[in-house]
Amino acid sequence: MHPRFLYDLEHCSIRRALEEVGETWALLILREAIYGVRRFDDFARALGCGRGVLSDRLKKLIAAGVMEKRSYVEAGQRPRAEYHLTEKGEELFPALLALSQWSERWAPPPDGPVALVTARGSGRPVRAVMTDDPRVANLGMADLNLRLGPGARRVA
Amino acid sequence: MHPRFLYDLEHCSIRRALEEVGETWALLILREAIYGVRRFDDFARALGCGRGVLSDRLKKLIAAGVMEKRSYVEAGQRPRAEYHLTEKGEELFPALLALSQWSERWAPPPDGPVALVTARGSGRPVRAVMTDDPRVANLGMADLNLRLGPGARRVA
Repeated sequence: MHPRFLYDLEHCSIRRALEEVGETWALLILREAIYGVRRFDDFARALGCGRGVLSDRLKKLIAAGVMEKRSYVEAGQRPRAEYHLTEKGEELFPALLALSQWSERWAPPPDGPVALVTARGSGRPVRAVMTDDPRVANLGMADLNLRLGPGARRVA
Repeated sequence: MHPRFLYDLEHCSIRRALEEVGETWALLILREAIYGVRRFDDFARALGCGRGVLSDRLKKLIAAGVMEKRSYVEAGQRPRAEYHLTEKGEELFPALLALSQWSERWAPPPDGPVALVTARGSGRPVRAVMTDDPRVANLGMADLNLRLGPGARRVA
């Protein structure tokens, strides 16, 4: 018997993380939120899914504490809902950046990266790395600049 | 219109990465491979899925170049297949470590981490971080020690 089966790994943090956000659709909603999408109609358009499906998905992300619904009022308009990443949601960014870098390395996008991530302070590119050096600071979303790269083709 | 819709983000590397490995089941197979599971029967047991489903899933991971099938012969036995992570597969580890850390921070496992990741060289804990410092070396799987933590309950 493989020694893996000597142990109950029920609380494995990889499994627990995947249960919360592991489905492709949840990560794609987070991706759109990182790109700055906030409104229900914009999420529906970006994801190409029906309103019922999207509503259900957003509810699950809100229940997981990864996104939150905020009321937003423009002068003279009726209030509308916006969906924002919470701090917990923003802290998923290193995992998404690591996935993105992996894909860029193993399947380089034909026209270069669609998005570029740089540090606000230095302007230098930001990488997701594994390190054992306790002095290395972990940048947060607020320290980053996200902008479109050469692979994002303008369509309108 | 949200400016996100001015652009065609078809080649977004987050989306492309998720297409290859974004489904929960694929990431769970990778998790088992990281834990050292190699044989078909062990994967089936670890994932609690039927053989047909597992066979289909492994084929997709092999087609994506993330895992490979190797023939393995023990003296006096017939050859059997083992499934190993490729280099491409091993390079997904930073994303899985980032997910794992995120889960440990936001939903601490009741008895502590199930797995501990340390650097072979220093013995220090390894973190997945975002950095703009080009001098920070990115550790690879070969630089890491994975061992069970206090949250892995022995069952046999």
